[in-house]
Amino acid sequence: MVDILHRVGVLAPAPRNVFDALTTVEGVAGWWTEDTTGSAREGDKLVLRFPAGGFDLEVLERRPDERVVWRVTDGPSEWVGTTIEWDLSQEGEYTVVLFAHRGWAEPVEFMHHCSTKWASFLMSLKALLETGEGTPAPRDVKIDNWN
Amino acid sequence: MVDILHRVGVLAPAPRNVFDALTTVEGVAGWWTEDTTGSAREGDKLVLRFPAGGFDLEVLERRPDERVVWRVTDGPSEWVGTTIEWDLSQEGEYTVVLFAHRGWAEPVEFMHHCSTKWASFLMSLKALLETGEGTPAPRDVKIDNWN
Repeated sequence: MVDILHRVGVLAPAPRNVFDALTTVEGVAGWWTEDTTGSAREGDKLVLRFPAGGFDLEVLERRPDERVVWRVTDGPSEWVGTTIEWDLSQEGEYTVVLFAHRGWAEPVEFMHHCSTKWASFLMSLKALLETGEGTPAPRDVKIDNWN
Repeated sequence: MVDILHRVGVLAPAPRNVFDALTTVEGVAGWWTEDTTGSAREGDKLVLRFPAGGFDLEVLERRPDERVVWRVTDGPSEWVGTTIEWDLSQEGEYTVVLFAHRGWAEPVEFMHHCSTKWASFLMSLKALLETGEGTPAPRDVKIDNWN
């Protein structure tokens, strides 16, 4: 099993702002994909759709201002069964986001792509909270010939 | 041992353009850090300096238009002994860059940071080749409270 890891710092007044962007449909739609539906409550399912495909995520854990965990229940075969974990903490003026997309079976080329793409979505989350404007799909930053 | 993996596609006429940006001092200075000196020839050493610290890299492999490998010989302790590998291929109009920073002893918080930072430097490499203008240090994209 291999993991994608990232870290960003959001200049936000409190972890609550980042937590809300991860735990509401409107929040997720502001940085990941505009076509986000479902529910971000614990035990519920978030439904994310992109111009090409999408993901269904079960909300496994939702600890206010500290931690969010999703499990992928539908989507590309390499993603199904993996978990996406967010750990938040405050360091000075920054809310630090430690991100992990865990449980990839193999370090396939698609994982390389998703790692870079995750970085760009994390920068979109940071921009949403710092400037009010993210770049969710379909306005997402294109990184290669796959998207 | 754990690895940072990324993939970008550069809209470039040929892998040669990307290869040159990885194998000349001027090229590396255009996307990673303006303060790049030394030599990018096989067996030689590239010396990269940033406002806070830097890296010395030994050029282990340099296969024209296909592959470049560096070994970190000096820098932060977590980096020393790791390798940085670049594999290039042409897919339609894109030169695809498969990137791996291999051999981290542990998935420490600094590795999370470096993974996101690598993504931003790869996007800088892409921008340099597509638009003529990258964002090397000290003009690099800030991702968190560490840089």
